[in-house]
Order: sequence, then C-alpha cells, then structure tokens
Amino acid sequence: MDVQQALNELDGLQKKLYAYTTAQASLYLDGVTVAPRDTAAGRGVALGILAGEQHKTLSDPKVGEMLEVLSANTDQLTPEQRRQVELLSREYRQLTRIPAQEYMEYAMLVNEASDVWHRAKETNDFPLFAPVLEKLVAYNRRFAGYYDPDKAPYDALLNEYERGITMAELDKFFATVRDKLVPIIHAIGEKEQPDVSFLHRRYPVEDQRKFSDYLMEVMGLDRAHCAIGETEHPFTLGFNSQDLRITTHYLEDDVASSMYSVIHEGGHARYELDVNPEYDYTCLTGGASMGIHESQSRFYENLIGRSLPFVQAIFPKMQEFFPQQLGDVTAEQMYRAVNKAQPSLIRTEADELTYCLHVMVRYEMEKRLIGGTLEVKDVPAEWNRLYKEYLGVDVPDDTHGCLQDSHWSGGSFGYFPSYALGSAYGAQMLRNMEKDVDVWGSVARGDLEPVTHWLTEKIHRYGRMLDPKELVEQACGDFDPTVYTDYLTEKYSKLYNL
Amino acid sequence: MDVQQALNELDGLQKKLYAYTTAQASLYLDGVTVAPRDTAAGRGVALGILAGEQHKTLSDPKVGEMLEVLSANTDQLTPEQRRQVELLSREYRQLTRIPAQEYMEYAMLVNEASDVWHRAKETNDFPLFAPVLEKLVAYNRRFAGYYDPDKAPYDALLNEYERGITMAELDKFFATVRDKLVPIIHAIGEKEQPDVSFLHRRYPVEDQRKFSDYLMEVMGLDRAHCAIGETEHPFTLGFNSQDLRITTHYLEDDVASSMYSVIHEGGHARYELDVNPEYDYTCLTGGASMGIHESQSRFYENLIGRSLPFVQAIFPKMQEFFPQQLGDVTAEQMYRAVNKAQPSLIRTEADELTYCLHVMVRYEMEKRLIGGTLEVKDVPAEWNRLYKEYLGVDVPDDTHGCLQDSHWSGGSFGYFPSYALGSAYGAQMLRNMEKDVDVWGSVARGDLEPVTHWLTEKIHRYGRMLDPKELVEQACGDFDPTVYTDYLTEKYSKLYNL
Repeated sequence: MDVQQALNELDGLQKKLYAYTTAQASLYLDGVTVAPRDTAAGRGVALGILAGEQHKTLSDPKVGEMLEVLSANTDQLTPEQRRQVELLSREYRQLTRIPAQEYMEYAMLVNEASDVWHRAKETNDFPLFAPVLEKLVAYNRRFAGYYDPDKAPYDALLNEYERGITMAELDKFFATVRDKLVPIIHAIGEKEQPDVSFLHRRYPVEDQRKFSDYLMEVMGLDRAHCAIGETEHPFTLGFNSQDLRITTHYLEDDVASSMYSVIHEGGHARYELDVNPEYDYTCLTGGASMGIHESQSRFYENLIGRSLPFVQAIFPKMQEFFPQQLGDVTAEQMYRAVNKAQPSLIRTEADELTYCLHVMVRYEMEKRLIGGTLEVKDVPAEWNRLYKEYLGVDVPDDTHGCLQDSHWSGGSFGYFPSYALGSAYGAQMLRNMEKDVDVWGSVARGDLEPVTHWLTEKIHRYGRMLDPKELVEQACGDFDPTVYTDYLTEKYSKLYNL
Repeated sequence: MDVQQALNELDGLQKKLYAYTTAQASLYLDGVTVAPRDTAAGRGVALGILAGEQHKTLSDPKVGEMLEVLSANTDQLTPEQRRQVELLSREYRQLTRIPAQEYMEYAMLVNEASDVWHRAKETNDFPLFAPVLEKLVAYNRRFAGYYDPDKAPYDALLNEYERGITMAELDKFFATVRDKLVPIIHAIGEKEQPDVSFLHRRYPVEDQRKFSDYLMEVMGLDRAHCAIGETEHPFTLGFNSQDLRITTHYLEDDVASSMYSVIHEGGHARYELDVNPEYDYTCLTGGASMGIHESQSRFYENLIGRSLPFVQAIFPKMQEFFPQQLGDVTAEQMYRAVNKAQPSLIRTEADELTYCLHVMVRYEMEKRLIGGTLEVKDVPAEWNRLYKEYLGVDVPDDTHGCLQDSHWSGGSFGYFPSYALGSAYGAQMLRNMEKDVDVWGSVARGDLEPVTHWLTEKIHRYGRMLDPKELVEQACGDFDPTVYTDYLTEKYSKLYNL
C-alpha cells in the first residue's frame, strides 16, 4: 500500500465510521425523545449489529496496515492527517483488544440498560436496575484492562474521557475544592436565603418552549442547524458541525430548571457548531474531551448565564414570556434566586457552588465500583452515606439518589469528574477572556457574540486537533484550580455578604 | 456450505439487512420530522454509505451461494424459510444487477431530492426541482432495465410495488373506474352541495393533537408501540411489528385534513402491528405490497372512517374536543361534509369518489415519463392539461399542481396506481367481511375490534408470506373492480339523491 492509497483509505474509513456513528446516534436520539415506550428491543437488535459492523470496520487488520504506512510517512501528511492517524491509531489499538462479540453484546446491553434505568427511576426500584448495573461495571472493568492493562482500571477509564487525568490528580483537585468551598458553604448555612418562591409558580410548558426558543436565539444557535427536543435527562448530540440537537426537560413548577438546562446544552452545541467544518466526517470533529465540553456548557450556564449582567439583560424579555409569574419580581431578585446555594439532592438541579460535591460523591462511588471495593448491592446505602457526609442531606429514595443520573446506564464510568474539571477550566478561560474582550459590557447588552468569538478562536474551532491539556494551556497557561475556587469565593461572598 | 450453515447465514443476513434498513429509516424519519432545516447534507453522506453497505451485504456472492444451497433443499425448510429464500432470491437477482456505486449515488440523490422538493414546493419553483427530477427519472429507467430487461420500463417498476400488475391491466382497470364513476361525478355536479363551512372554523393545533390521540385509541393503536409525529406529507414508518410511527400535518382551518390522515396512516400502522411478530427481523415482516398496504389504510379511512355509523359513533366525543366549533353541528351534517364529492386540486385532500382521477393523472404522467415520451420540462403543462381534462379544474400553480406529492422526490415511480388498486381491494374485503362479522353494529358502537380482527386473520398476520394476488384471492376470491364501483355508486347515490 503506498501513501496515496493509504490516504484514500483513511478518508473512506473515517466516512464509514461517521456513517455508523450517525446511524447509532439517530437511533439513540429517537429512543430517548420520540420513540414509543416499548420499542427498545427492536432498536437494540439494530444497534448491536451496527456497533458490531463499526467495530469490524475499525479493527480490520487492513486498517492497522494503513495506519502503519501513514505513521511511517508523517512527513508527507498535512497536520490534520497526522492528527487523524494519531487519534485513529490510539483507537485502533484499544479497539483491537476488545473482541467483536463482546463489543456487540455491550452495545445491546447499554440499549437495554437505558430502558431499565428509566423504569427503575420511575418506580424507585433499584433492585430492577442492579443486575444491569452489575453487568455494566463488569464490562467496564474488562474494557479498562483492554484500554491500558498497565493502569489501574479506573485510571484507564478516566483517560478515555480526559486524556492524562489520574485518580492521584483528581484526589488532589477535589481536596483543594473541598478545602476552599466547604467553609463557604458552611458560612452560607448561617445566612438568610433569598426568596425563590417565584421560580416555582406555575410556568406552562408551552410558554417555556417559547422561552427556550428565545434563549437559543440569545446564544446565536441557528435553528436551521440546531434543533431542540424533550427527554428525561437532557443531553446534546452532534451529528456533524452543521447538525446539532439539544434536549431539555420541562417542569411546570420550576422555570429555572429548563432555562439553565437549555443554556447548558446550548453551550455544548455552540462548541460543536463552531468546530472547523472542514473536520466534518473525520475523527477531528466534535469536542476535544468531556472536560473541555463541560467547560463550555458550564461556561454559558454559570459563568455567563448566572452572572448579574446576563440576568439583567434577559430579564425584561423573560417578564414578557411570563408576565403573571414575574410581574412582581426584579432582575436582582432573579439573580439571587438562580444563585441560591444550598446543599441538595439532585446534581442537575444543584447550584454552582455545591455542584462539585455532587460530583465528588459519584467520583468516590465509581472509583470503588471499578476498583472492585464496592459491590453494586451496596450502592444505595453508600450513596446515601456520602450525601450525608459531604452535603449533609438525607436521601429519601433511590429515585432522588443513586438512580438520578443516566450516565451509568449509558455505560459511562469516569465521565463525572469532567463536570468538575470543566468548571475549573472555565473559570480560567473567563479570567483570560476578560483581558482580551469587554466580556461584561457585551453580556450586559445581551450580546454574547464577543464571548463566543473568543471561545471559538481559542477552543471551539480546534475540534480534536489538540489534546485537552494542550488546549487549556494554549488558551490559559498552566491549569490552576484556585482560579476557580477564587472565582466562587468572590461571587458567593458578595451574594451572601460573607 | 451445508444446509444448517446456510440457514444460519440466512438468519444473520436478514438481521443485518434489518439493521441497515432500521438505520436508514431512523435517519429518514428524523429528517422529515424533527431535524433542523439545513442538515440534509450530513445525513446524505451517512445514508449513501449505509445504502452502499446494505447493497454490498445483499449482493455478496456468498449470499448467492447460500440462497442456491437453500433453493436446492427446500424440502428441509419450513414454509417461512422457503418464502424467505424466495423473496431474497428475487431481491438478490435484481440487486446484483445494480452496480453498488450507482445504488449508493442514488440513495444520496434521493436524500437531496427530498430537501430540494420541500423548498421547491414551498416557493412554487418547479425549475428548482426539475434537474433533480430528471436524474430520478433517469435512474429509475435504468433500474427498470436492471429489474426486468424483458419488460417495458414502467411495467418493471409497477411490478416492484404490486407484483404482477401491468400497464395493460391498469389501463383496463382505470377505464372501468372512469366509465362508472365519471357519470356519477357529473350528476353530483348538478346537485346542491352540503355545508362544509364548519370544517373550516379555527381548530387550534393543540386541540387537534388531543383529537389525534383519541382517534388512535379508537383504532386500538397502543401508544407503547405506535407514536405520532408531524411532517409536511404524512406517512407511516414501521421499524418492526413492535415499533410503528405515523405522522400527520395539522391545518388550523381544516379539522378533517388531519383527522382522516391520522385514520389513514393508522390503517397502515394497524396492518404492520398485526403482522405475526415471529417475522420480525426477517424479510417476511411488513406489508405484502403497496396495493395491499393502501387497501388497509383506505379501508380505515374511507370504508369505515367515512361511513355514517362511524361518524355517528365518534361525533359526540369530537364535539367534546371542539365544543365551540361543532356545538351547532349534527353527526349527519358531519357525515355529509366529510363525504362532499367535488373535483379539486390536491390528491391527499380529495374525496373518496374523485380520488381515483387524481391517481389517473399521475399514472398517465409516470407512464410517459418512464416510457420516455414525456420530458421533465413539460411536466407542469401536461399535469395542468390532464387535471383540466379529467377533473375539470384549473391548476393555479405548481405548488398545488405537480409539486404537491413527495413520491417522485422519494424516487417512487409506479407507486401511485396502488392507491387506486388498494381502494378497489378494500371494497371487496368489506363485502366479504360483512358475511362473517356484524361490521356496522360494531362500528356504530365505536368498536373497531371485530373489523381489525377480521383483517388481521385474513390479511395482516401474513406479512409478506403471500403475494398480493394470492392474499386478495384467499380473502375475497377473484379481483373484481366492479364491487368497488358499485360500492361508490350506492354510497354517493344515497348521499346526493341521484
């Protein structure tokens, strides 16, 4: 095989992988948004076969040969092609260690698990979910060994989501966060809480849908390339840089829930829409890592979306959507309400300050589940114990406890820490952005364009061209979590007069 | 390869084909219901590749070998396996004549065409659609030659949708229909028309959605296995016998439009939901032919849905959904309104009586387009001329003329006649059903179960086990279109006092 032939195959391979990924993503999206309830079995059969074909495609020895030819001739490749070869070689090595049959069975299991988890959560029935969770944990422990047999299993999984991150680093990171933030949370416990009752008036879903449309407009999300759907647990799905889907979940008695979920998912979508479109149908498109992805979603959600200038900018319009519910409320009251900090039960509804403690619970649980020192049957009790220890709250049932998140049912172990890392990355990006751009002046005018432009130039457009560490360093210098804890300290000290 | 190996491969092949079909169907469904507007390109790339892989899968010489082994040993096969081998051999022979590259390019063209057609229809811009239509016609003429080089191209395409049907038979069929029905249509032209103004009051979409839910309930469509979506041109999509999707299109000023589209698509869904579930993931599932499929959809829509007992049965409930719009209307008035017969422009909105003439226009056009005696650039003029000749109406623009249907943009040439055939099959089924079941007593109670049970036993459960001709003969004896024209003559003579 000569270099030109290999390059043609590189292109064909990536298009084929794109097609399989797109097919599976479409079936997944359908399954969690519009599909009838009892139809998972049929999708499972199709998904299993498609995953198997994708696995076969990438693990074909001819692919290995092609990647070797190109790796030996990197001088003849463009930087993009070099990066493609690097990323695909990494994936090829990992994948060829997973037997095709196992990979296919796992894909079917994940499809089934999503269905079982939905039912278990609905009916507060952890024992229903437990056997599936056990299988998922077992598969992931095995996969960890395939990914990197030299690493501890959980380190190997973490590396999948945030290349280079380890338990050692995360233990240190979370210790810093805990040391800096827990005293503030305690101090706030002594203070009077803001009034949030107006957030829980009746907000008809139909009006919230229109409000979502408005928020997407503020974020510059072009509806010809970005749709919004409804699902149990909101997520974002990118088919390519021209086709993004965000989802949300409306609660009639909580306007802030969907509002910030739309801004959060909108941040994910913003990221992928802004990736260099030349990377479409190659492995270079999409986000650099889960941590970087979360840095973007949480940037829009918290650093911008929960700032005073932003709330002040959109509040008059918000009052137009909800005149009866918000006629007697001021922007300042709204700002205080959406920033109320109080230990609580549900991660996705948690405030910016206590959020990291929710992530810590999951990090501890995963570390031990994958490490083999925690059994699935003990998950509920251990979950409840950690919530009491870290957050001081009593978990009333598993629906509001260990069944609240979809991640484990989707087979994601090692993903959660990226939520916390993303928040920390974001704070550093903000400080650097403030040097280049009049962030708060623009936000106060409801104009997010300069913010998005900075992020596009420094982060978004690169797609997967750079590893997360390089990307953060290039944009912000060395990673420093105290920028994040300082940001929170300053914000919440002001909010609560500490 | 021994018989057992071949049987294993037969099973694996069908599952794989199911997976590819499911993937493409999911992308298609997404594209015409919830996908953002400018995203067809990315789906097109994926669809092209998936179609290519599916083509490769079925046209693999190993498949030919397997089918030969099984064809030579039919005595060792179950009736279902024999039928699978028969159907797949037919498809294999056809498909291996289409070069993979051409098949793939065609799949991408169809995806693009759907998008272009939507825009062309929206902006009344036939020249925008014309180049795509030209390519579609050219591909289908070539494909006809691949399917059966001994047949006239249009006969070869007809055979794809309704096995065994020919232009000669259809010319005769349409002549009968025309001879019997045109005099009635003329006679009605002299009579006073019923009041239909109340159908065109303002019916909010949100209320129509709830009414659709009710209609699906009346039809026994289990929402855990059948969902409803919204699209430009309603259709039904079956993933397997446990997962059906119908779609509709709501017009605020026409309650009957979506009402009968839901019942029509519900009939398609009813059919596939009732196919023997053991046929899932094999080529035996789904409908026997387009004609049989249309016989079922039109059975529920017209023979049942537009009957006096049915309208009387559901009308009280309909008044509950629309108290302001229908408070001053009687069931009898509603019955007359939804059966108003009058030549018009839009096929999907046409009444039961004049419907066949709309189909005749398309039949004539297709016959000549595929026959090579009509050029694409002449389509609008010829369309308008035929509408004047057959229906006596002037077509104001292409949006309400030759751009109204999605079929050609989907690459379907030879499908339209099955709408007319289906209506005729249905009338014969009704007459036979009446011998076995108290059809009208049940319908008057709003109970469609006996009707559905009869259809399930005689038609639905067979899936593709029988060819359409066998199916109709087994259920109703020899095909006789005068049963259909007699049915219409009787119904409309009473309605209009002829």
